[in-house]
Amino acid sequence: MRFQVASTGFYAPPTIQTAAELSPLIGRSPEWILSRTGVAQRRIAHEPMSVMAAHAVRDALGDGPQADLLINASLTPIQLIPDSSVFIQKELGWSQTPSFSVHATCMSFLVAMHTAGALISAGAYKRIVVVSAEQGSRSRDMGHPESAALIGDGAAAAVLTATPDGEDSQLLAFSQSTWPEGSDLAELRGCGTRKHPNDADTSHEDNLFRMRGTRIYKMAVLKVAEQIKTLLAEANLTTDDIDLVLPHQTSGPGMSAINRFGFPPEKVMNIIGEYGNCIAASIPMTLAQAELQGRLKRGSRVLFLGTGAGLHVAGAVVRW
Amino acid sequence: MRFQVASTGFYAPPTIQTAAELSPLIGRSPEWILSRTGVAQRRIAHEPMSVMAAHAVRDALGDGPQADLLINASLTPIQLIPDSSVFIQKELGWSQTPSFSVHATCMSFLVAMHTAGALISAGAYKRIVVVSAEQGSRSRDMGHPESAALIGDGAAAAVLTATPDGEDSQLLAFSQSTWPEGSDLAELRGCGTRKHPNDADTSHEDNLFRMRGTRIYKMAVLKVAEQIKTLLAEANLTTDDIDLVLPHQTSGPGMSAINRFGFPPEKVMNIIGEYGNCIAASIPMTLAQAELQGRLKRGSRVLFLGTGAGLHVAGAVVRW
Repeated sequence: MRFQVASTGFYAPPTIQTAAELSPLIGRSPEWILSRTGVAQRRIAHEPMSVMAAHAVRDALGDGPQADLLINASLTPIQLIPDSSVFIQKELGWSQTPSFSVHATCMSFLVAMHTAGALISAGAYKRIVVVSAEQGSRSRDMGHPESAALIGDGAAAAVLTATPDGEDSQLLAFSQSTWPEGSDLAELRGCGTRKHPNDADTSHEDNLFRMRGTRIYKMAVLKVAEQIKTLLAEANLTTDDIDLVLPHQTSGPGMSAINRFGFPPEKVMNIIGEYGNCIAASIPMTLAQAELQGRLKRGSRVLFLGTGAGLHVAGAVVRW
Repeated sequence: MRFQVASTGFYAPPTIQTAAELSPLIGRSPEWILSRTGVAQRRIAHEPMSVMAAHAVRDALGDGPQADLLINASLTPIQLIPDSSVFIQKELGWSQTPSFSVHATCMSFLVAMHTAGALISAGAYKRIVVVSAEQGSRSRDMGHPESAALIGDGAAAAVLTATPDGEDSQLLAFSQSTWPEGSDLAELRGCGTRKHPNDADTSHEDNLFRMRGTRIYKMAVLKVAEQIKTLLAEANLTTDDIDLVLPHQTSGPGMSAINRFGFPPEKVMNIIGEYGNCIAASIPMTLAQAELQGRLKRGSRVLFLGTGAGLHVAGAVVRW
């Protein structure tokens, strides 16, 4: 599938919350937070996700032309109806541009990038902006320190186009799998028919995010190991051929597991310490940071990897 | 874009609620309900959307092979995280099959069908099932009779494959536009950060669906008229060349407007009276009913049309 990520955009809300500042809110020491989650600090958004998303989209588009499709790939909704793509467009001052939202939990950006690549490859659109913006801090359960200490807010976007003549950017492999047997490992049980907000038995905690850290870590490590094999086989590459790994920023231990799969730390983008787990925005934020740091070169081989609540597992190998 | 809708599936929950039965719940006469909404009866689901969706998916797949991707195109969530595609797979007993959710309000099925077509056309998947299942009855606002009287529950699915050799099924035109200036015309303001279920100022009504019927009707009629012109121009067809129109079942007056666009009633599938407005499931339910009634013939030209909260406007012309 031939497409190119032409540019990326990044936005982090200005308010920083350090491990020391979070510590009294969740009743755990800064040392506990750092050792369990690896998150030294995270950003906290006081603006809605649509405002963050619009910043990231403007940054990604730069002086280039308008996009002909916007895909919102975020979990944080402004409201249930309409979907958030509409509110992102409203914030951008756009009108008429088609838009929709993709939800595959933390894998939303990867799934949306693959979908956008297919739409470009099929000739349906020419210039697609995919944006993820998360305000997960609003749904942190402070009574559940392990989940609450992971989450951060932020946004990032990527502009996809057809690969220009004479260049060789393309998708070398893509793989997704979904394992419903892990559906209770990371959940926000509210905001739907199971725990409708108007139901008397819907609790405050039902509307907050909870994760069973140890169980999801064990399942994710197994599934990601399989995913890497599948992706490398499809791309006909070895681990050594990969120039840069852009993983979902799950947690400190999760990032260390990537190294044990044969990718040395210098090849793995790691922003978990500075930004925390920004849900679906983690992967595009990692991508945008890689671009800002000059680590993405045309022709290099980039591996995207991750897992999300569901359990959704996804990955891609891209010739940049 | 070459793809074929190989088969469809349909599921309507058994409980029927007639205009006479709804009448005392919303304080309006059966005559008022019929004249304003055209909905003589609707189905009310007592099962979650995942159960309805699984029925429709099984019906669509029949004895054929398993799908290699499932796309959930529904507004009704089971819960916020994970997305409902996971719960539909769980209900089906599937594991490993990739899945995700698409949200473009009532246009979710059309957007997902277009996306699925691109994924097949690009060679990413071979057999995709797109399913919409709605339990909007849970979020009816009985204090707002005009919206409450429209909504019904139901589900439908479609299986998309590459067009078999020797056949000529293809997408002749697709068009989507999104108009955020209409974002407040049809809303469920809760279940996100704007009216978080844990916020003290989030009201019971914020978690229910409301529509400004007259304003959305006026805007939708204008936008759909433009959409039809765009689609027919792209497909190089006239209104007379269209064999069958499969519109979103908005309301009785909305269905009559389709006739005024040059499509006589005998060419327009109309199930609003029997099933009501089933949100994103309306279009695939209309499609599945057309197949059940033998109204879809290979080679015929089918026009999909509709608007959804946002305002999202979408349409497609398919050589069946």
